[in-house]
Amino acid sequence: MRNVVVLGIGMTQFGKHPDKSLKDLGREALYRAVQDAGIELSQIEAAYVGNAAAGLITGQECIRGQVILSGAGLTGIPVINTENACASGSTAFHLAWMAIASGLYDVVLALGAEKMTHPDKNRAFAALQSGTDIEQLSSFPGYEEHKEGQSIFMDLYASEAREHMMKYGTSLETLAKIAVKNSYNGSLNPYAQYQQAQSLEAVLQSRMISDPLRLKMCSPIGDGAAAAIVCSEKIARQFTTKPVYVTASVVVSGSSSKDQKIDTVQRAAEKAYEVAAIGSEDLQVMEVHDAAVPGELLAYEQLGLCPPGESGRLIESGDTEIGGKIPVNPSGGLISRGHPIGATGIAQIAEITWQLRGQAGARQIRNQPKAGLTENVGGFLNGDNGTVNIHILKR
Amino acid sequence: MRNVVVLGIGMTQFGKHPDKSLKDLGREALYRAVQDAGIELSQIEAAYVGNAAAGLITGQECIRGQVILSGAGLTGIPVINTENACASGSTAFHLAWMAIASGLYDVVLALGAEKMTHPDKNRAFAALQSGTDIEQLSSFPGYEEHKEGQSIFMDLYASEAREHMMKYGTSLETLAKIAVKNSYNGSLNPYAQYQQAQSLEAVLQSRMISDPLRLKMCSPIGDGAAAAIVCSEKIARQFTTKPVYVTASVVVSGSSSKDQKIDTVQRAAEKAYEVAAIGSEDLQVMEVHDAAVPGELLAYEQLGLCPPGESGRLIESGDTEIGGKIPVNPSGGLISRGHPIGATGIAQIAEITWQLRGQAGARQIRNQPKAGLTENVGGFLNGDNGTVNIHILKR
Repeated sequence: MRNVVVLGIGMTQFGKHPDKSLKDLGREALYRAVQDAGIELSQIEAAYVGNAAAGLITGQECIRGQVILSGAGLTGIPVINTENACASGSTAFHLAWMAIASGLYDVVLALGAEKMTHPDKNRAFAALQSGTDIEQLSSFPGYEEHKEGQSIFMDLYASEAREHMMKYGTSLETLAKIAVKNSYNGSLNPYAQYQQAQSLEAVLQSRMISDPLRLKMCSPIGDGAAAAIVCSEKIARQFTTKPVYVTASVVVSGSSSKDQKIDTVQRAAEKAYEVAAIGSEDLQVMEVHDAAVPGELLAYEQLGLCPPGESGRLIESGDTEIGGKIPVNPSGGLISRGHPIGATGIAQIAEITWQLRGQAGARQIRNQPKAGLTENVGGFLNGDNGTVNIHILKR
Repeated sequence: MRNVVVLGIGMTQFGKHPDKSLKDLGREALYRAVQDAGIELSQIEAAYVGNAAAGLITGQECIRGQVILSGAGLTGIPVINTENACASGSTAFHLAWMAIASGLYDVVLALGAEKMTHPDKNRAFAALQSGTDIEQLSSFPGYEEHKEGQSIFMDLYASEAREHMMKYGTSLETLAKIAVKNSYNGSLNPYAQYQQAQSLEAVLQSRMISDPLRLKMCSPIGDGAAAAIVCSEKIARQFTTKPVYVTASVVVSGSSSKDQKIDTVQRAAEKAYEVAAIGSEDLQVMEVHDAAVPGELLAYEQLGLCPPGESGRLIESGDTEIGGKIPVNPSGGLISRGHPIGATGIAQIAEITWQLRGQAGARQIRNQPKAGLTENVGGFLNGDNGTVNIHILKR
């Protein structure tokens, strides 16, 4: 398979954009990525578009990518629409990677776009709820105590938090410190939905969502888009002397098998490390799926940054802060950058690309990082993740 | 890129299946394809799943493939969910082809599944309607005269029929003969939704849907699934001495550009012929997208079976009948086999595979066909097709 390069990236600010349609958001991200790549729009040979919620939010299904791209004047090329819940963006990126790696195309677009806000807020929660088997909602963890008007996934994250607290003595304050860190990082990111650093007190005093998770420990509802121009090494040489390579693109789904002892995120990460022929110790930066703080806490262990049970100590050590040994979520993560679900996976790719290029501005990590990882998780089924998508980028 | 083989195929009967869920339908098609391939379920390394309507019909979005496959015990592997309106199935097949051609996997599944029937019939029509830009419905051809309780796409096909009649003098009877032919073919196909041959009179006397299209000239609402096991040539050799190869897998989208003079189906077909290094004269069988009879009529011209304006004469000649020179839709097509939209593209692949293997039973075409083509069209946007997917299979 051929080497694959992320040639250009672009995104909108994530946030509540009542005046912008999916087309507006998609166009903005696309044009920025095209400009960043230095190519012409007409050089894009195919598009892979991730969106998870439009069907249930606006009624637009079936050809969402074509509709979005028609608003940017990008028509006539193959358009593949894909969805994988909160990992729709990285699924689109994976397909774009496969299209280049296979030799089928030389320049393609991966676009993730999502508009979650709607005058009827319940539509967003219905869309999120469809990230599980809707025929088996009653068996969803915590569903019996689920409160109307919020995402069922927060109940799931809450149960994971409680389990970690019980098993390893992780404290509420430790959990909250992930949100404090990510809010600080978000304050340095002009693309973030929330750009205000939060104190530990502010996080702990925010409204209870699902015990022990407070509002500021959870990612918000929002709108946004992110785009990546992906190309072959040969094409990349015409446009840049400092290409960022995709050295692993791994998608796995959870298993309903009781025999499956190994955690699915861990399984995906091990596969990615194997494909990229590196270990977690070779990475200098990570963007992980902190849809709520336990997502990041557990990722430390699942991705091999620390042994099981040590993730609380890792956040307390400061090592995952921007100035630390292995910065995690320098963008602010899903909690602060925001989580327009179909866009998140490509926003993670964008952040790692900026970090590897040294273009991350005030949140740039030190010592010229050489390799970074993204972890994007989507859906939940039969007690396991619907999909776990891991990408490793290297310069 | 590597050679790709269709190792196994399987489908459910298409029709109204009130007692079967999407999971039931998907499982049935999957197990048949696995059995046909002679592999174990556990040999499937990844799944590409096409479904267009579940979000708007049942509320199941986001991880439809994982949900369907969990009902068949196929979990833990990468699952890519894709949709492209009525061409969702062939889009899933295209991705499966790319996965094998790239060398990423050796054995993968392409599954198309759709459940259109629902006690609230309007849900199916809402889902079909989302195959265009729902913000621009008023500019959809024929929308001002659109009748509630049927698909807007029938108005579109009706306008195409009227145009052909005006321009070339094609008669209503000629149009109806496509439905007569396909209903006869469907009567020979145990998987068809309608298995009764219709007389010309019966077709003409059926209820008017959108002038000049009568009910029996249009594909029905229905449920069904179709699956293909796709693999590398090396794997195929372990299981069969008569592999069916995918020699072209082409996806293109319509163009909003006024400069784009060439028809999109024609553009896709020319690309497919170029990739497969053959011409339409080298094909012995075709499955085309007769969502309504004008779809097949125009396909004759777009795919190069006859010059523009000659398609009426072609159907009158009998050459596209099962016993003719170039049989088209021996399965009964969308009109008689049925059109559970996400499943159709893979059902077309199944039919061509059976025909090339000589396993099409009573509808087997003569003279041992060597190559066949499928044409699957999805959605409509800015006066052009949302996507046109062409596959060429060869033994």
